[in-house]
Amino acid sequence: MEFSSKLLEKAVNEMAQLPGIGKRTALRLVLHLLKQPEEQTQYLAQALTTMREEIKFCKSCHNISDVALCEICSNPLRNNKVICVVEDIRDVMAIENTGQFKGIYHVLGGKISPVDGIGPSQLHIASLVEKVKAGGIEELIFALSSTMEGDTTNFYIFRQIKDCEVKTSAIARGIAVGDELEYADEVTLGRSILNRIPFEHSMKNL
Amino acid sequence: MEFSSKLLEKAVNEMAQLPGIGKRTALRLVLHLLKQPEEQTQYLAQALTTMREEIKFCKSCHNISDVALCEICSNPLRNNKVICVVEDIRDVMAIENTGQFKGIYHVLGGKISPVDGIGPSQLHIASLVEKVKAGGIEELIFALSSTMEGDTTNFYIFRQIKDCEVKTSAIARGIAVGDELEYADEVTLGRSILNRIPFEHSMKNL
Repeated sequence: MEFSSKLLEKAVNEMAQLPGIGKRTALRLVLHLLKQPEEQTQYLAQALTTMREEIKFCKSCHNISDVALCEICSNPLRNNKVICVVEDIRDVMAIENTGQFKGIYHVLGGKISPVDGIGPSQLHIASLVEKVKAGGIEELIFALSSTMEGDTTNFYIFRQIKDCEVKTSAIARGIAVGDELEYADEVTLGRSILNRIPFEHSMKNL
Repeated sequence: MEFSSKLLEKAVNEMAQLPGIGKRTALRLVLHLLKQPEEQTQYLAQALTTMREEIKFCKSCHNISDVALCEICSNPLRNNKVICVVEDIRDVMAIENTGQFKGIYHVLGGKISPVDGIGPSQLHIASLVEKVKAGGIEELIFALSSTMEGDTTNFYIFRQIKDCEVKTSAIARGIAVGDELEYADEVTLGRSILNRIPFEHSMKNL
């Protein structure tokens, strides 16, 4: 792609660094900004740099927060004896939206993935293990994605805390509510049969 | 969507102002920036603001340029008697990529579109008409998109210059090179028959 302006080229190249944004999309976005009032670009640039520089992470659960201890961790109504282990803050948002979880979270910041060069030390695993070993935690819910990396991470954490007195659980995998059995993939359908639950129990959650 | 941080929320909201970027995508992009070194966000913000503040438009063709007269307009090898009228700078880039056009351009900056509140005065139409009326232009090639807005704009310009001694032409519409006739839409196929060209002529351009 040949640009008639170095300034434009630089802006497009920087924009195209973002995941899922190719050069063409980047050009479209940048040209859109050019058509808008100058303030919009300033607000965007300002919001991004301020966020990047000033954002804090909760010192307990590593969720993004504006204060040292996030709203969930500091909420006295939440059960801080039940910890849900998730990959990143989008998972926290997704679970919070369900309104079904009253415990607290622990955000790992990713999954163990040797291919991408991510080992346990780059994730917030040590602080989780420490928390569990300090005692007082009743249950750890693993809610990572069910990929090889997710399973590896779950297992790595599980091994470190297996001598602690803590219940561990994993979120249920199965056919999505409202889905047709015939269109479900075999692995999911297979698991949903293996991990079946008492019928009375399933009625309770309707 | 509930955010655990105002800074994050603001960044996501600004990002989601861009066309085709919804809240979820914006969140993904912003979280990506958080995982990258701080410099990447700074470079992006810097590139965008510098571009928005300092970018210039060619005083003749209104293409984006770093100098007062763009590289195409100031190139003595280009035929400045043939002007290709396009909607925006992406069209210039597309035509330049073909290497088939040796004239110069005129970027309108959009199409006449009453629905979007865009009238002729918001586009660079007056300067084009002026250029033609000043004389010395041999041909005007209309290369706007073939929508109602594009046709309206073409016709509006055509009416203003119809008394001038200038040849006007429109780029050919027809079946794309390599396309199968059976999958072409009727309008395009119909036009490609009506606007057929002598066979010897079509062989020349192979």
